[in-house]
Amino acid sequence: MQPSPFVGELVGTMVLILLGNGVVANVVLKKTKGESAGWIVITAGWGFAVMIGIFVANAFGSAAAHLNPAVTVGFAVLRNDYSQITTYIPAQLIGAFLGAILVWLQYFPHWKETEDGGAKLACFATDPAVRSVGPNFLSEFIATLLLIVGVVAIGYAGTSDPDKGGIPSGVTPYLVGLLVWSIGLSLGGTTGYAINPVRDLGPRIAHAILPIPNKGGSDWGYGWIPVVAPIAGAIVGGLILRSFSF
Amino acid sequence: MQPSPFVGELVGTMVLILLGNGVVANVVLKKTKGESAGWIVITAGWGFAVMIGIFVANAFGSAAAHLNPAVTVGFAVLRNDYSQITTYIPAQLIGAFLGAILVWLQYFPHWKETEDGGAKLACFATDPAVRSVGPNFLSEFIATLLLIVGVVAIGYAGTSDPDKGGIPSGVTPYLVGLLVWSIGLSLGGTTGYAINPVRDLGPRIAHAILPIPNKGGSDWGYGWIPVVAPIAGAIVGGLILRSFSF
Amino acid sequence: MQPSPFVGELVGTMVLILLGNGVVANVVLKKTKGESAGWIVITAGWGFAVMIGIFVANAFGSAAAHLNPAVTVGFAVLRNDYSQITTYIPAQLIGAFLGAILVWLQYFPHWKETEDGGAKLACFATDPAVRSVGPNFLSEFIATLLLIVGVVAIGYAGTSDPDKGGIPSGVTPYLVGLLVWSIGLSLGGTTGYAINPVRDLGPRIAHAILPIPNKGGSDWGYGWIPVVAPIAGAIVGGLILRSFSF
Amino acid sequence: MQPSPFVGELVGTMVLILLGNGVVANVVLKKTKGESAGWIVITAGWGFAVMIGIFVANAFGSAAAHLNPAVTVGFAVLRNDYSQITTYIPAQLIGAFLGAILVWLQYFPHWKETEDGGAKLACFATDPAVRSVGPNFLSEFIATLLLIVGVVAIGYAGTSDPDKGGIPSGVTPYLVGLLVWSIGLSLGGTTGYAINPVRDLGPRIAHAILPIPNKGGSDWGYGWIPVVAPIAGAIVGGLILRSFSF
Repeated sequence: MQPSPFVGELVGTMVLILLGNGVVANVVLKKTKGESAGWIVITAGWGFAVMIGIFVANAFGSAAAHLNPAVTVGFAVLRNDYSQITTYIPAQLIGAFLGAILVWLQYFPHWKETEDGGAKLACFATDPAVRSVGPNFLSEFIATLLLIVGVVAIGYAGTSDPDKGGIPSGVTPYLVGLLVWSIGLSLGGTTGYAINPVRDLGPRIAHAILPIPNKGGSDWGYGWIPVVAPIAGAIVGGLILRSFSF
Repeated sequence: MQPSPFVGELVGTMVLILLGNGVVANVVLKKTKGESAGWIVITAGWGFAVMIGIFVANAFGSAAAHLNPAVTVGFAVLRNDYSQITTYIPAQLIGAFLGAILVWLQYFPHWKETEDGGAKLACFATDPAVRSVGPNFLSEFIATLLLIVGVVAIGYAGTSDPDKGGIPSGVTPYLVGLLVWSIGLSLGGTTGYAINPVRDLGPRIAHAILPIPNKGGSDWGYGWIPVVAPIAGAIVGGLILRSFSF
Repeated sequence: MQPSPFVGELVGTMVLILLGNGVVANVVLKKTKGESAGWIVITAGWGFAVMIGIFVANAFGSAAAHLNPAVTVGFAVLRNDYSQITTYIPAQLIGAFLGAILVWLQYFPHWKETEDGGAKLACFATDPAVRSVGPNFLSEFIATLLLIVGVVAIGYAGTSDPDKGGIPSGVTPYLVGLLVWSIGLSLGGTTGYAINPVRDLGPRIAHAILPIPNKGGSDWGYGWIPVVAPIAGAIVGGLILRSFSF
Repeated sequence: MQPSPFVGELVGTMVLILLGNGVVANVVLKKTKGESAGWIVITAGWGFAVMIGIFVANAFGSAAAHLNPAVTVGFAVLRNDYSQITTYIPAQLIGAFLGAILVWLQYFPHWKETEDGGAKLACFATDPAVRSVGPNFLSEFIATLLLIVGVVAIGYAGTSDPDKGGIPSGVTPYLVGLLVWSIGLSLGGTTGYAINPVRDLGPRIAHAILPIPNKGGSDWGYGWIPVVAPIAGAIVGGLILRSFSF
């Protein structure tokens, strides 16, 4: 096979979800070695998942390594160039779906050890700590807007100062991973920081399809918020950044 | 709009407070996903908040990225050049105030879920573990003095040894973030390490103004210490560093 | 003595196991300072163990610094060059065995303080959270496949973009350590992520031989899975990567 | 004043102890914000303390930045050059003593809030989890030997591969800090990893002198082990490294 942006986004997002949803499974499912290991484990796990997803996406042909439709849309608005959307977003959604299936396989014995259907759903999709449409939307909106601004700011550091060395390109994925770790620690306490439509939608579809024992519903009533709010935040972020001529 | 030092300090400090006070809200408010997640979460969250605030401030036009009047004053004393103060400090204060409003919005449903007024105030301003004016002042003085010395020492590493590569400029924000993480872990146990006048004052003003349910007082009796002591520590730090001709 | 690949793999793997199994001993044995310190401590400890093992292996003559037969086999398949196997794997196994003896010495007073034979065995070899051959094999297979892909992706970042600086070579061991930290956080909750045949086999042999008080059995019935499954995952990983012409 | 190796070692070690013993005070004293925050906090705090101590020591004139007589002796043996010892070690001891006084000031209100004399002593000097001379000596010996080997291996990475960039010199202090974080996580569970004679002796002298309420004894019966065992480990480490012609 050939590396390509489509393959890179697909494989990178699959790895992102395997590692990201994997750490949730480790913490919330029963009888795992990381059971109830806490917020530092979940947020570190997601941060590193982003870093490794980017390295893998780069290697498999996506130099951009968005892994996230909100990032793709944010950059499209910023650059007023929408050509990547139709390639990237389908690849991201397929990758997220496949990554969720890998999580299901990785933690196979633990689904039947866990009684709580909500805990099992949490290994796939996000849910709000306090359910309230407006504030939940706003939380995802703010967190994703900051994600877009942060990614652009880190990229700016990598290019703005070549005489001093900028950021070595291989280190950028690490810093973006820390950005997501930070967003999780600081802003994730309300809705579990989807900040990525396919991170939520792909695994939620997998949850609806997979034969998980006593799984309960897939909570589609909430499912539109982690899709729409991150896109809204990314559009506003892209517009703000464009107004500053980034 | 145009990037400028004023815009960069304002936006960078807003991000610093959104992420920094955000992690406190996540840990101390009720029913959040990070409730009671502990000191490692709070200190990591603040460290990353500093790093991302610096990247954002750089991108929006502040190459210095102080985000903190104590740093601005410390460098002014070190360089015997006070010209930045009147631009930077107002921008930092406005940014900190706006960042606190974003935290209030981000954690909107959790203010009424939390009964303890002290916990709610902690999401805005610092308070001492054991209230005692002299020792509290001294704690903030020592921690801020170390902040100034540490920032200068990291900057020194970035420039002193160009043949070996120094610190790539994009990595410096990461190291300064780790410095603040370290100060939090090691010196923050007494007064909660404001080490930054606007980090405390801006959000305390926001706390006094915002319509937070059952919020209790804003503890203005303590509020002068995290403003004055960091400035005092920064002045002494700047004088020490100047005596060594940094 | 002369540095050589054999010496480097042996000493590096010894350090890997001393630090990696050492952190498990600290957390699971009784009356240690890190008793019950949790999953973040174990996974961070293993991640740093990998980083330091690589630095040491490099310094003692192994530029490749695999420290793991699965990595050696994965690269052999990828490159269709099996010449390293007969040198590297014996060195890794001897190093792992010696590292386990050092852990035994380091925590000497704590073996008799700990009653649970399973806890003592956990300081040497892995065991599954829920014992089930197929899923246990699959967990080790998936996690090791990702290890191989991740190592190659990080190496790709280090070489693909020389104009932007790539990854400074000395930073690569850090990123590989983070990869293992990530795998531990996200995928280690089921079988304890051996992902390395000698990490499990060498210390299990040491456990069988050493005079540990009330040690119980060495669980040889499970011991083949952390040997065979990582090799299988590495072979499949190598084949996938070769099909993409890495 | 002028920067010099003496000043650099003194100030750097003072910062090392302020931050390193400071994190212990935060975790073990009563009514602090980090009370009982656990092993991850203590070990991260010490790791960052080392990093910042090195940056500060570099800036104040010690390019070597040992901050530790064991490191000074280890390099002296490795290079067969003992000229640094008489300058470095006195500076390190004075710095460690002054750093302990700063910890005492920083946590001033908490000494009388804490009843347990052993907890107060732990903010100054190490003590073994299980008291037993031979194994305690061996633990400090092994951990310090690894420290010396690790520091040399990291330094080797920084110089061995200039075409690929090695480690940027400003990043080396970070990696050495992670080495100490790692040693703490993995090997520190037995004796609390002094691995540095002045880290233990300087603060122990301060403990004996300072007017701490209800402080109890300074445990001089144990105090020779964290002085002698690290030196012994460093000598053996230096000899091993010299036999490999580092």
